[in-house]
Amino acid sequence: MKKLLISIALTGLSLHASAEALFNPTQLKQVAEIRQQAMQSPLAYEILTSLTTEIGPRYPGTENDKLAVKWAQDKFNHLGFDKVWLEPANFPDWRRYSESGKIISPSEQPLHLTALGNSVSTPKSGITADVVIFETLEELKAAPANAAKDKIVFINYRMNRDIDGNGYGPAVQARNSGAVEAAKKGAIGYMMRSVSTSHHRFAHTGGSHYQEGTSKIPTVAIANPDADQVARLIALGNPVKVNINVQAEDLGQGSGFNVIGQFNGAETPEQYVLIGGHLDSWDLGTGALDDGAGVALTMAAAKFINSVQRPKRSIRVVLFAAEELGLWGAKDYAKAHKKELSNIVAAAESDFGADVVYAFESNVSAASLPIVREIAKQLAPLNIEYIGRNKAGGGPDLIPLKNTASIPVFSLHQDGTDYFDYHHTADDTLDKVDPAKLQQNAAAYAVFAFMAADAPYAIRGK
Amino acid sequence: MKKLLISIALTGLSLHASAEALFNPTQLKQVAEIRQQAMQSPLAYEILTSLTTEIGPRYPGTENDKLAVKWAQDKFNHLGFDKVWLEPANFPDWRRYSESGKIISPSEQPLHLTALGNSVSTPKSGITADVVIFETLEELKAAPANAAKDKIVFINYRMNRDIDGNGYGPAVQARNSGAVEAAKKGAIGYMMRSVSTSHHRFAHTGGSHYQEGTSKIPTVAIANPDADQVARLIALGNPVKVNINVQAEDLGQGSGFNVIGQFNGAETPEQYVLIGGHLDSWDLGTGALDDGAGVALTMAAAKFINSVQRPKRSIRVVLFAAEELGLWGAKDYAKAHKKELSNIVAAAESDFGADVVYAFESNVSAASLPIVREIAKQLAPLNIEYIGRNKAGGGPDLIPLKNTASIPVFSLHQDGTDYFDYHHTADDTLDKVDPAKLQQNAAAYAVFAFMAADAPYAIRGK
Repeated sequence: MKKLLISIALTGLSLHASAEALFNPTQLKQVAEIRQQAMQSPLAYEILTSLTTEIGPRYPGTENDKLAVKWAQDKFNHLGFDKVWLEPANFPDWRRYSESGKIISPSEQPLHLTALGNSVSTPKSGITADVVIFETLEELKAAPANAAKDKIVFINYRMNRDIDGNGYGPAVQARNSGAVEAAKKGAIGYMMRSVSTSHHRFAHTGGSHYQEGTSKIPTVAIANPDADQVARLIALGNPVKVNINVQAEDLGQGSGFNVIGQFNGAETPEQYVLIGGHLDSWDLGTGALDDGAGVALTMAAAKFINSVQRPKRSIRVVLFAAEELGLWGAKDYAKAHKKELSNIVAAAESDFGADVVYAFESNVSAASLPIVREIAKQLAPLNIEYIGRNKAGGGPDLIPLKNTASIPVFSLHQDGTDYFDYHHTADDTLDKVDPAKLQQNAAAYAVFAFMAADAPYAIRGK
Repeated sequence: MKKLLISIALTGLSLHASAEALFNPTQLKQVAEIRQQAMQSPLAYEILTSLTTEIGPRYPGTENDKLAVKWAQDKFNHLGFDKVWLEPANFPDWRRYSESGKIISPSEQPLHLTALGNSVSTPKSGITADVVIFETLEELKAAPANAAKDKIVFINYRMNRDIDGNGYGPAVQARNSGAVEAAKKGAIGYMMRSVSTSHHRFAHTGGSHYQEGTSKIPTVAIANPDADQVARLIALGNPVKVNINVQAEDLGQGSGFNVIGQFNGAETPEQYVLIGGHLDSWDLGTGALDDGAGVALTMAAAKFINSVQRPKRSIRVVLFAAEELGLWGAKDYAKAHKKELSNIVAAAESDFGADVVYAFESNVSAASLPIVREIAKQLAPLNIEYIGRNKAGGGPDLIPLKNTASIPVFSLHQDGTDYFDYHHTADDTLDKVDPAKLQQNAAAYAVFAFMAADAPYAIRGK
């Protein structure tokens, strides 16, 4: 936090100088009104409740995915968006049918596990084998060629908890490619400690990959308490045998839709602020945190803006498809809009749960920074600090856009301390969302999007 | 807490007067040594780790139950108990094979459920029906005769959280007899909100009963977030259809053992202090809180006493069988020892998790109270308050004993605020136990048991 405060101090001088020039008193009054309305409105939580209750899980390609698309169109229309439309999105379709696991010896015990996305099936009776433990993916890679011959590899690496989720990256490598490395050492199955900070018995799913030329072996994650148990049993020195049963299917190419709603700008409607989240979720929970919250709060934010003042530029809410399977909706959006990405004057995706926004950061041209600082000033009443380093990531679904063109992106950094207690588990449900915190998020997006859309000149990327 | 403080104030006067007469300085020094040793020893946690790791779940009648009996004998012997023996226990044997559930409409969503103990099976494909909601068991009872005809009854009653678990009693009635009342109203299945304070997606199992002459219908509990979801869906006004699948079996009479270890008293070994817990657990978790903790801390407490001073009377640790199915081991113990229950000079079962002991209460003859007050005085350094009302329950497995004879019982009241977050769920695992709190429990039992066993005269029941 100290670093953030220094950033504010350093940028404080310029904040003051340009204040009145960029946004006039009427605009600033409108900002205050939007912020206040958002902080008092239950709308975002109502939208989230509707999505997670009436649809529930929204795994790409499923019937629920189709229901969610219909739900989103209806909701945009009901909220009075000027334009509501679908854009096709294609993705590799995979389906989980069933999964279970148990320790067989030294004594029979249930194992709480979940298949990683893309896992092949086991035979109907599962696979049964002794477990060989590695503390890290690196340790597995460094092991001799036959180190896991006919065994089930278990990687015991535990993710760290932190406000910005920085423990996720190092942990997730074992999810992405653990099964490949295990197969290279002769393993017949792969099992990892969940990429999760939870001490409850929920396994964490997520994308995983196979490699051409390496045999595809079933790949699962086990809950933290189960990983503790397996590690303790192995430490006792006797063989530990487990059974893993996964029934899943690769369905080839699937298709769905990005769902888009727009309030048109009053002066240059072709220019737009892009906010949004991803509509899809994993199949285990109801995707309240990941990413129902992002969907709901950005829809609500656009509505709050429009009910106070239509800005110069458009506000476009994009609900991306199939993010969980590899940003597929975002890739198709980037392709479809390739030639007009310069119309984006600001982009921010909310996809990190529903805890408070504690910091605001841009990634824009130097010439755009005075506007950014004005926005930061109007976010301060929401207890949001300004990070001046100008290196914001902007959210996962913006990656394909950033790879295609120079677009101005923003991060409204959320407190992610508890996010990985729920992320990609069955426990990601509505009750994990605090309505007051969701309001603060919606208010932050509304203030940011309105000011970016109504700024005296268009914000540009680096 | 206020009530407790008043109790202490009222009993404080008499505490002081009799202090030196009852326990001599050597005894008090031994008490201090036992207390200190217990507070520094990892023994209880080591025993608990061994039981929950090497055996895991210990459902009566299973292979793990047999392993646990062997484990307990070995552990008693290893700890140097003078006598270790088994006593037969019989119980109604029921086995859970599989269970699953889903909401079918308005959209398909998984339901996290567990069968209640004793549930009949559904057909192989489960039962599918619309849900009819009742807020309480009383509301169901008061409904017209055909109110749930061909439906699945859902009781939405939510358990209250409190330090002494007083929310359990009112909630558990719907578990015991909900299926009977639902069947009387024409239901084909029964589903209740879990008797649980958890906001995680774990369903709570537990005993349930059928009634002669009323049809037996499958009976399950759903996790709190799932109960929220079903209630929200019903509130939307459209029919909510669910599928419940339970495969279970009534195996008739099963058998197992109470496992007993004793350190013999130096002067009147036939008289004994009875401490203990129940060795069995539900099948979902590893029974760390319920009741591995009680097993471990009472075994350790006896060992601490013996390593400092052998008291006048014996210390007997009884690990009861099949408590979860209805106190069956305790009933058989009461029967087997019917004629010599007057040998029990104090009894206390630990069966309320592993949080700290915060209060001490007796249920003894008036003549025994001076000893009780001396014990209370030696528990005070462990931050344990004395409750002077002299109405202690003593723990579930003492009920059959109390029903058979007047025995002096004690409650070492544990903080149960979080207990029902884990109780009877898959999430009852070792990581939920704080080793320091377990030490405090073991110290409390050691101090209490030593003083009761070494008191100048035998404590008697009312």
